[in-house]
Amino acid sequence: MAGIRLSRRLHLAHPRSALYPRLFSSSAFRMSSQSYRVERDTFGELQVPADRYWGAQTQRSLQNFDIGGPTERLPPPLIKAFGVLKKAASVVNVSYGMDPKIGQAIQQAADEVISGKLLDHFPLVVFQTGSGTQSNMNVNEVISNRAIEILGGELGSKKPVHPNDHVNMSQSSNDTFPTAMHVAAVVEITNSLIPALTELRDALAEKAQAFDKIIKIGRTHLQDATPLTLGQEFSGYVQQVSNGIERVKGVLPRLSLLAQGGTAVGTGLNTKKGFDVKVAAEISKITGIEFKTAPNKFEALASHDALVEAHGALNVVAVSLMKIANDIRFLGSGPRCGLGELALPENEPGSSIMPGKVNPTQCEAMTMVAAQVMGNQVAVSVGGSNGHFELNVFKPVIAKNVLQSIRLLSDASRSFTKNCVVGIQANEKRIGQLVNESLMLATILNKTLGYDNVAKCAKKAHKEGTTLKEATVSLGFLTPEEFDEKVRPELMLHPDEE
Amino acid sequence: MAGIRLSRRLHLAHPRSALYPRLFSSSAFRMSSQSYRVERDTFGELQVPADRYWGAQTQRSLQNFDIGGPTERLPPPLIKAFGVLKKAASVVNVSYGMDPKIGQAIQQAADEVISGKLLDHFPLVVFQTGSGTQSNMNVNEVISNRAIEILGGELGSKKPVHPNDHVNMSQSSNDTFPTAMHVAAVVEITNSLIPALTELRDALAEKAQAFDKIIKIGRTHLQDATPLTLGQEFSGYVQQVSNGIERVKGVLPRLSLLAQGGTAVGTGLNTKKGFDVKVAAEISKITGIEFKTAPNKFEALASHDALVEAHGALNVVAVSLMKIANDIRFLGSGPRCGLGELALPENEPGSSIMPGKVNPTQCEAMTMVAAQVMGNQVAVSVGGSNGHFELNVFKPVIAKNVLQSIRLLSDASRSFTKNCVVGIQANEKRIGQLVNESLMLATILNKTLGYDNVAKCAKKAHKEGTTLKEATVSLGFLTPEEFDEKVRPELMLHPDEE
Amino acid sequence: MAGIRLSRRLHLAHPRSALYPRLFSSSAFRMSSQSYRVERDTFGELQVPADRYWGAQTQRSLQNFDIGGPTERLPPPLIKAFGVLKKAASVVNVSYGMDPKIGQAIQQAADEVISGKLLDHFPLVVFQTGSGTQSNMNVNEVISNRAIEILGGELGSKKPVHPNDHVNMSQSSNDTFPTAMHVAAVVEITNSLIPALTELRDALAEKAQAFDKIIKIGRTHLQDATPLTLGQEFSGYVQQVSNGIERVKGVLPRLSLLAQGGTAVGTGLNTKKGFDVKVAAEISKITGIEFKTAPNKFEALASHDALVEAHGALNVVAVSLMKIANDIRFLGSGPRCGLGELALPENEPGSSIMPGKVNPTQCEAMTMVAAQVMGNQVAVSVGGSNGHFELNVFKPVIAKNVLQSIRLLSDASRSFTKNCVVGIQANEKRIGQLVNESLMLATILNKTLGYDNVAKCAKKAHKEGTTLKEATVSLGFLTPEEFDEKVRPELMLHPDEE
Amino acid sequence: MAGIRLSRRLHLAHPRSALYPRLFSSSAFRMSSQSYRVERDTFGELQVPADRYWGAQTQRSLQNFDIGGPTERLPPPLIKAFGVLKKAASVVNVSYGMDPKIGQAIQQAADEVISGKLLDHFPLVVFQTGSGTQSNMNVNEVISNRAIEILGGELGSKKPVHPNDHVNMSQSSNDTFPTAMHVAAVVEITNSLIPALTELRDALAEKAQAFDKIIKIGRTHLQDATPLTLGQEFSGYVQQVSNGIERVKGVLPRLSLLAQGGTAVGTGLNTKKGFDVKVAAEISKITGIEFKTAPNKFEALASHDALVEAHGALNVVAVSLMKIANDIRFLGSGPRCGLGELALPENEPGSSIMPGKVNPTQCEAMTMVAAQVMGNQVAVSVGGSNGHFELNVFKPVIAKNVLQSIRLLSDASRSFTKNCVVGIQANEKRIGQLVNESLMLATILNKTLGYDNVAKCAKKAHKEGTTLKEATVSLGFLTPEEFDEKVRPELMLHPDEE
Repeated sequence: MAGIRLSRRLHLAHPRSALYPRLFSSSAFRMSSQSYRVERDTFGELQVPADRYWGAQTQRSLQNFDIGGPTERLPPPLIKAFGVLKKAASVVNVSYGMDPKIGQAIQQAADEVISGKLLDHFPLVVFQTGSGTQSNMNVNEVISNRAIEILGGELGSKKPVHPNDHVNMSQSSNDTFPTAMHVAAVVEITNSLIPALTELRDALAEKAQAFDKIIKIGRTHLQDATPLTLGQEFSGYVQQVSNGIERVKGVLPRLSLLAQGGTAVGTGLNTKKGFDVKVAAEISKITGIEFKTAPNKFEALASHDALVEAHGALNVVAVSLMKIANDIRFLGSGPRCGLGELALPENEPGSSIMPGKVNPTQCEAMTMVAAQVMGNQVAVSVGGSNGHFELNVFKPVIAKNVLQSIRLLSDASRSFTKNCVVGIQANEKRIGQLVNESLMLATILNKTLGYDNVAKCAKKAHKEGTTLKEATVSLGFLTPEEFDEKVRPELMLHPDEE
Repeated sequence: MAGIRLSRRLHLAHPRSALYPRLFSSSAFRMSSQSYRVERDTFGELQVPADRYWGAQTQRSLQNFDIGGPTERLPPPLIKAFGVLKKAASVVNVSYGMDPKIGQAIQQAADEVISGKLLDHFPLVVFQTGSGTQSNMNVNEVISNRAIEILGGELGSKKPVHPNDHVNMSQSSNDTFPTAMHVAAVVEITNSLIPALTELRDALAEKAQAFDKIIKIGRTHLQDATPLTLGQEFSGYVQQVSNGIERVKGVLPRLSLLAQGGTAVGTGLNTKKGFDVKVAAEISKITGIEFKTAPNKFEALASHDALVEAHGALNVVAVSLMKIANDIRFLGSGPRCGLGELALPENEPGSSIMPGKVNPTQCEAMTMVAAQVMGNQVAVSVGGSNGHFELNVFKPVIAKNVLQSIRLLSDASRSFTKNCVVGIQANEKRIGQLVNESLMLATILNKTLGYDNVAKCAKKAHKEGTTLKEATVSLGFLTPEEFDEKVRPELMLHPDEE
Repeated sequence: MAGIRLSRRLHLAHPRSALYPRLFSSSAFRMSSQSYRVERDTFGELQVPADRYWGAQTQRSLQNFDIGGPTERLPPPLIKAFGVLKKAASVVNVSYGMDPKIGQAIQQAADEVISGKLLDHFPLVVFQTGSGTQSNMNVNEVISNRAIEILGGELGSKKPVHPNDHVNMSQSSNDTFPTAMHVAAVVEITNSLIPALTELRDALAEKAQAFDKIIKIGRTHLQDATPLTLGQEFSGYVQQVSNGIERVKGVLPRLSLLAQGGTAVGTGLNTKKGFDVKVAAEISKITGIEFKTAPNKFEALASHDALVEAHGALNVVAVSLMKIANDIRFLGSGPRCGLGELALPENEPGSSIMPGKVNPTQCEAMTMVAAQVMGNQVAVSVGGSNGHFELNVFKPVIAKNVLQSIRLLSDASRSFTKNCVVGIQANEKRIGQLVNESLMLATILNKTLGYDNVAKCAKKAHKEGTTLKEATVSLGFLTPEEFDEKVRPELMLHPDEE
Repeated sequence: MAGIRLSRRLHLAHPRSALYPRLFSSSAFRMSSQSYRVERDTFGELQVPADRYWGAQTQRSLQNFDIGGPTERLPPPLIKAFGVLKKAASVVNVSYGMDPKIGQAIQQAADEVISGKLLDHFPLVVFQTGSGTQSNMNVNEVISNRAIEILGGELGSKKPVHPNDHVNMSQSSNDTFPTAMHVAAVVEITNSLIPALTELRDALAEKAQAFDKIIKIGRTHLQDATPLTLGQEFSGYVQQVSNGIERVKGVLPRLSLLAQGGTAVGTGLNTKKGFDVKVAAEISKITGIEFKTAPNKFEALASHDALVEAHGALNVVAVSLMKIANDIRFLGSGPRCGLGELALPENEPGSSIMPGKVNPTQCEAMTMVAAQVMGNQVAVSVGGSNGHFELNVFKPVIAKNVLQSIRLLSDASRSFTKNCVVGIQANEKRIGQLVNESLMLATILNKTLGYDNVAKCAKKAHKEGTTLKEATVSLGFLTPEEFDEKVRPELMLHPDEE
């Protein structure tokens, strides 16, 4: 068997060195409780920590997918969205005939999931079954056991509230997980990202207005160019963020379509006609955001194009914020040897070795977030492109990356606004100095002297280190008075009147 | 100087081996003509091939950027869009007072650029100045020389039509290049991509209808699942492509905003008030597509978020088509040892060594296109994120990637439709065989027998290699007649009636 | 200011809805303790939880960078690597004259960092200062306070062990952070990834040997092709993983070069000559892995090419594992309607709605890991490409992505090996059936009958649904006996003898 | 069929507008010749341009894959590598008994392919069969017809030299295409990329030496930092490029392993034992570069990990060059309002509107190349990860991206070296001014005055706009003489002597 090299011991033990023990393995969970109860699934019995609501299938997944540890758990917004979904499904199931007492208990337990206070009962990581089945079962098990508790039953008995027959009634992992993905993404975009971007946009706009009269050198190719106002420069950032908000809003129509009701393969087998529409309506009611049932459930289970699309918008926002944060830190570079046009707020001591130095740390955090989001774009696209037949099984990794990008962009925008943008001050003295030294004011003379003559003046001044005025006058093109009259930066900030 | 290792000869000659001479260097151009004329710019004189319209700045760029060879030239749609722009600018400039005779000649030359017949006069590659300045000058020089020729002047004389003073009047590379990028992208999306995707969507929809009665096994996790119709399966693809069309259309509002009128830094210096609006209107007239002037020119020069956004939509289309093409080739796998549910058209002999084998080549071309587009997404995002101050200088590479993705997706969709989709046939015999052998029809018994009992039947049949019916009957849950009455795939294709 | 739209209220409050409160903000930390002590830095005083060792700069960062919450904290291996570094630096500093009593206390505290038991004292997130300054200070503060405690001093007094003057002695964030990045990556690769990949390689090799006699149909373009043994097929996987191990090892030479000793900009200002070499030697001693000082410290601070390179190797491993996991799940597809050549171990119940179905969940986890790593590749590359001048300030995000990829690949390989590969069984009956039905055995007749005649036989059999033998005989090319003698799959598994 | 919207006319005609006719479609080829001959394959007869050597399978591919046009053709180095391979195979086949007269003619024709003079006979695009079968047949057809011509036969007759039976003897597309990919990549890396990078490294090293005495301000976080020499700064770039060369060389061991001899699925069916080793030896002889046969042919056909790995190295080179080019353009920013430490060579007029402005155009070309390569990395990885069973069918797109990245990095490095690096001059006056104004020289006082006092001096000078000396003296920490003696930048360029 050419090309195969075997290590001597086939099943190499790889004892983690004492130096680097594996602290954060999910197995930590299995040891955190000292007493257990027995739960069972179709595979058999399992011990589960007595103080946790999860059941056998969750426990089994914990043992089978020891990948990445707690930081890789499914993000909380997804768990909460599952709470929303299970509550909504229960309401609809009662309307179709489920025992209202059971429904009521499920809804109460689901509310606790929504509130976040049961998060410790959702230990599963992203890197599990690609349909998220085990997390759907985790939700079913937790809600069922909590509902059983509410109704005075025995945990693990599956009575009177069965995780499959009641909590998961008329549902499949294959439609619940994508539904929860969409609900979580829409809620986070609506409640977190759009407000954060709006706040940033407004803070930038306030600066754009405040800086509206400050004339500065323009820079293209990093080279001195014709002037503009600092307000105009910031207005470009405002437009970028404004557009970003529109872009993110633009994905909501497709993102707010829900797979629920498709069950296992999209046909809706084992649901009632109308279940899909009613669940979407109920979810809208709970979240206060409009959701609709997806027009084609086959697409909704087998592809996650809407999430790939949503991340495409997040990617543009990241690209925009990278540009803005880069500009701000370069404009704030110095204090003595940089561009020095902006003074950024001092939030913390800078280098541990260099006293007095203050760094554009908020810009750095923002550009790191942008790099992460640009990477997440690929993870989401690779996941989205690899679905097969009736089911895409990259659901958890897609969900995680989309929700991480939303969270990071939201938090970083808020941090950047509060700790950087609102405190930015223009260094007007420095700005004035630079614009006046520049040769690029020459451009305004194009129409008076012609392109080639202007080039001569600028080149002469550049080579001799003089001002443009001196060069222009000494070449005999203009008198000093004519120069002063014609070369006024404030005339260069807009098109000519017709 | 620690860590520096010098090779002995500092300026290492790297003679290309005789084996691998560099055939496709752009220098080929400099040698293709035997007679020259002299052109000049502010840097001095240069020899230019006598049979080319370009001038000194183009020639200089050819010599300074010998990167990648002819396949890396700016894409034709961009050159044509420049023709549109220069024509429009000339019309507006005449309305502001430019000599109509000059304007007329410029417009005639621009029309020839638009027609594509001057493409050999645009030799510059993508990897040049990041603002595309040299390509703007290439356009100015070609149109100026061609207009001079039309008016009976001498090539290279810049009289009576000056490349800068007339063809580039009221313009800067910094606003023309992004304008041409947007025009080219919008035109290609409108005239090429959307029709191609529509054609594909319709061909898939026709199949979805034709296959509407064919019941087949569903597959989730690649495992047998509950049935659906082949038409339902295809309807998911139709929905994906339909959504893709909507996604691509969704970027047009921002993509049809034009930078023209911003000139060098966005202020509009050296244009007339209203120039921007009029040029956009003129471009709309020429192309028959609505364009508007960008509300903020600073954003339009310094960022290319709209193109990053546009590529995000192309990326989703690529992701969708990867999924669809993958499904189709897997469903068509065989002829004897695969899934074999679909018969794909035979377009060419397959392997050069294995007779009688026919491969899903159109699917392969499509998935390779998808991989390319997913890569281009990163190139565009990296370029888009790295603008500085008043100008993004990754313009040509952004344009090239966006236009390549549009072209590849358009062409591949058309090829896939014509050479694959319309010819797909269902192998009904095979499909029927598989669905009937499947154990997953068991699901329909959940409500009759309960989840756990159904699991027992399915497991028994699986382990013993029998049919589900045999297992269910032998376990005493149903009589054969009951089984046949209850387990009918056609009942499993939709939700229950209320 | 064209194009700017302001929202009415400039500083929009964005109260998180009651439904989705922000549970996991890092501010949780500030509230988790009820008693405080006062710490100070050059910016002033701050309250710090009494039961935490961190000081003012850590606390300030917590407040200024509320981005992403606890799951975005710097990964534990990086914190531990900092412990290694601080211990090593202290040993060397004592050799240069630092008070041995202070040194001893620092080393003891550093050992506790290395052991992981102080991890709760490192609350800072990735998205902070891009040099990781605040995490370097976090380490300095924790070790200083813990050392003070060991020596009986008062927390926060900076006496007798000062975080800057002693713990950070002869160091800068700019050289400590990249040193810790390299140490962490090398240790994790050596102690975790390589053993995990070796284990996987060996498990695959064991299967390759076990399956060495099982002849199966080959598949190219997903179409039936000439046969090979299942062992040969698995030997390809073995080769891929073997190569992967080589690739990962191949990055260690550059990854084990340490920036330490470069201090702020690479010159080594404020260190002693030889400090760099001694620290590297000490780190080697502590970790048991060979490290060397980087030959050029300017490169080591300003670029992270070695980490980009390392991630490139991780990316190849991800690509390999995606291929292998995909093959295994497709070969295991079924149970009745797929390829069915492999039986994968049943680890958990599958779908929550379909009884008896078992899914290739380990393959799904693995391919999701691959997608994540492929995304991380871009995050690392974007970060790596955006350094400026003397410092790359994407350090934490690069570190996080590299360490996450190592962890996920390690854990997933281990899980995949244990829960999938070792339990894979060949379904020999099915495999035999398929290979015997195949038409592709025809290839062996090329030399006897010629390419074109063989094509005729195969096509005839394909169209009429007969066996190859029947077709060949009925076309008169061979007698049945001749056919059986010539068409033997076992002759098709290797080149002809010369 | 919910969710499907049909456009009215199912097969929408999409006439390309008169404005944007499709000029560059590959169909151009079918019309370029006016006379035809008839060629045939197993599918039937086809008309082929009389002046082209290709045959029926090439012609069929042209018609079936009208995707992307001529710029998407397979890159010339790949075609040439196919020439190398076919020559080598023919030599070996003769040694196994092929008619030497036929062998000789094949070898002569192959030499013409290698020389590049038959490139017009290879019209096929990347987006074809994913195994590259059609291009393998294109090579077989061209060589066969050219060999027939050499031997005086009739084009298209397949006599006396048959494209399959002779030119493709003992080969399959599945092993020839990956062999050609590896040969092309290794040759281009060896003959083009490594020399170009070496040249760049050496030019940078020459600058590092020339600038060795020029003391300048360091910049970290874009902020003023402690000084270093300009030579030290450049030495970091030298190290990056040196490492890049090592990285690229590091992939050659695996890249120079050849798939040839695996034939269709890796078993080597229809070759002779030893054929693989001999072909590799012959290829080594022809190219002058060492190649070996791959130890495991299953891996070599089914995965392209070695090319994914190779591109990982190219990606690091891109990342390095992005950093270097960015630094150089920022250090050269100005002329009046930027950092202005470097003067870059003026190669062409800059903006078309702003006279006298010269832009860092070579840096811009280089960073655009870097963006492209970073994108190609994803295309290659996606392609590499999606192989199935015995064959990866993303071969052409992988080859194209790898070869494009090699070409672009080679050409751009050469252009950057010649047109930028060798002409860089230090603006010593400006550099001196900046370093002397800086406050960061303060760091050297840490050991004399202590961290906190130094911070006070620096902050005072910063706030009052005075020099560090004035602040330090006025705070009473040092006399002017003491300051001058202690604060000498030349003392700050290296560690202290022990």
